[in-house]
Amino acid sequence: MQRRQFIKGASLMLAAGVIAPRTQAKSTTDSSPFQAGKYRILALVFDDYETLDLHGPVEMLGHMPNAEIKLVAAKEIVKSYQGPRVVADCLTADTYECDLLLIPGGLGTRTLVSDTALRQWLIKQVARSQNVFTVCTGTALLAMTSVLNGRKATTNKMAFEWVTSLNDNPQWQPKARWVYDGKFLTSSGVSAGTDAALFWVKHLHGEQEARRIETLTEYSWNQDASNDPYAVVHK
Amino acid sequence: MQRRQFIKGASLMLAAGVIAPRTQAKSTTDSSPFQAGKYRILALVFDDYETLDLHGPVEMLGHMPNAEIKLVAAKEIVKSYQGPRVVADCLTADTYECDLLLIPGGLGTRTLVSDTALRQWLIKQVARSQNVFTVCTGTALLAMTSVLNGRKATTNKMAFEWVTSLNDNPQWQPKARWVYDGKFLTSSGVSAGTDAALFWVKHLHGEQEARRIETLTEYSWNQDASNDPYAVVHK
Repeated sequence: MQRRQFIKGASLMLAAGVIAPRTQAKSTTDSSPFQAGKYRILALVFDDYETLDLHGPVEMLGHMPNAEIKLVAAKEIVKSYQGPRVVADCLTADTYECDLLLIPGGLGTRTLVSDTALRQWLIKQVARSQNVFTVCTGTALLAMTSVLNGRKATTNKMAFEWVTSLNDNPQWQPKARWVYDGKFLTSSGVSAGTDAALFWVKHLHGEQEARRIETLTEYSWNQDASNDPYAVVHK
Repeated sequence: MQRRQFIKGASLMLAAGVIAPRTQAKSTTDSSPFQAGKYRILALVFDDYETLDLHGPVEMLGHMPNAEIKLVAAKEIVKSYQGPRVVADCLTADTYECDLLLIPGGLGTRTLVSDTALRQWLIKQVARSQNVFTVCTGTALLAMTSVLNGRKATTNKMAFEWVTSLNDNPQWQPKARWVYDGKFLTSSGVSAGTDAALFWVKHLHGEQEARRIETLTEYSWNQDASNDPYAVVHK
């Protein structure tokens, strides 16, 4: 059998549930996907997540000293809205101790806000996460729960009406590139997540480290959380 | 057995998976990963590719009307420098007709420039690509071949000395956010690829469409190819 055929066969068996991804064994006991001593970043992925909501922060946070990034999903392979697929490192059958839970947004959140199993997982996972960072309509997934209640929070300004309609109790901020309150960092749409990620680097390691990563990635960081040009555009 | 009968029999066995097609045969017959009528974007991935080099352009190009993005790699699962893994849609055992070949950079290119099989694949794949778009040290992979010879091209300014040392024949541009010459679009480091991708949207669909995607993604587009702030920083 040629390698390509084998790969195709293995993928089909995986899809059909004939062979189980190793991660399924983790559903009862917590076998952390992280190495000891790392800054543990767990990113939730789901079909039709928005590419840059995830990968902008992954780029910036991934250059922090000692950072380790793992993807968690309800299934092993997940497709972005733009097409390319990613592989989950662990499954939402379990929850995991982590330092930062990253939740991207995207079209997929429109149906996921009705997903009871995800809602239950989020409540447990947020409790096991030192901090939680949502990008764009990723905030909608937290708004399904009560964890943001009483907190200042924001989201994509194009989806602001929808997200805020899900839960009246957070102190929704209509003009903010990102907001950090309690253990929650919430950001405006797509690229705002990349800016908020650099804020997070600064928060943890100081401005010099954030500038080092900005330079390394040839990025132009909007470092002012109150500078939210798209709040004006989308309103 | 007559030749015609043999061919028919072989075809049936091939269809039934009884005999495996030779790899050589695959490189001449095109098993396209793309749907008909799409703007076909093929992105090369490899271990230790830089996350945003790939996913910044994927975000912007993926919002173009009719775009379809597929990943190609030497193996089915590839790990980015930042950790998360992606799934290849097709393998470099074959080449594919496409409209845009996207080549990200990253630490992985440092060893890949010595990969003879990849070099041979690139020569064939570039010939089957209407346009080629490199980000950051992705340009180094093209510099292994002669396809950029005589063309204006650029790359990450932090890696400029290394990339340009690979091949004297392109007209290397030490100060450019991106360069478009012949069928080649080459860009500076990491985030420059996102700016160049929006240039590509403008090139294909006009400025209004590029602005629509910039707004949708709440991005701040550096739309001036001659504005290369990091050429100054890194020099």
